[in-house]
Amino acid sequence: MPIATARPLEHPAREEIRLEAVLHALADPMRLQVVRFLATLGEGEAATCSAIDLAISKSTVTHHFRVLREAGVISQVYRGTAKMNALRRRDLDALFPGLLDTVLAADAAQRRRVR
Amino acid sequence: MPIATARPLEHPAREEIRLEAVLHALADPMRLQVVRFLATLGEGEAATCSAIDLAISKSTVTHHFRVLREAGVISQVYRGTAKMNALRRRDLDALFPGLLDTVLAADAAQRRRVR
Repeated sequence: MPIATARPLEHPAREEIRLEAVLHALADPMRLQVVRFLATLGEGEAATCSAIDLAISKSTVTHHFRVLREAGVISQVYRGTAKMNALRRRDLDALFPGLLDTVLAADAAQRRRVR
Repeated sequence: MPIATARPLEHPAREEIRLEAVLHALADPMRLQVVRFLATLGEGEAATCSAIDLAISKSTVTHHFRVLREAGVISQVYRGTAKMNALRRRDLDALFPGLLDTVLAADAAQRRRVR
């Protein structure tokens, strides 16, 4: 296995997560789509990046997932060569009660209205 | 009065306001500070840009207020040569129920924890 795949991915600890970074991470339609998908998974479940059909290049997908991870919105762990992604719902709900659900509801309302 | 001050300022109509733009506008500590201040005003009240002590250059202040206005978070109208700013709470609450209050609460929680 190449060394690169074994490199642990950096995550902010719960207390390092900042509202501004979370809002920035959510302020993008592609990243909102990722969060929307991950929010449908059960607790403890994770999905590969390719499980979400984003219709953009692989490097752009990687970028968006990294923004979400570095903001503390998702966790990413390697399983073999694939990254498994999960929403950090427990951390976000503890820090910013209701924020994630309110944003997801706002996103759903907008999609009903606009598309 | 110079013509520039009479130029009407462009605002998105309520139905043109997009969640991604609102989240982006809120994803900045200076802009959050502006929103926090404007949220303390009563309905129908407005404040000049200089009423909020941001400790940054005037051009940067202007930039931040413009981002907020173009996202639909605030309204800006000229009164003489001063811009009067107000939160578009009614529009935001109608489009994205609870979002503004949840973000303001998250911001308050973070400031209690971090500063």
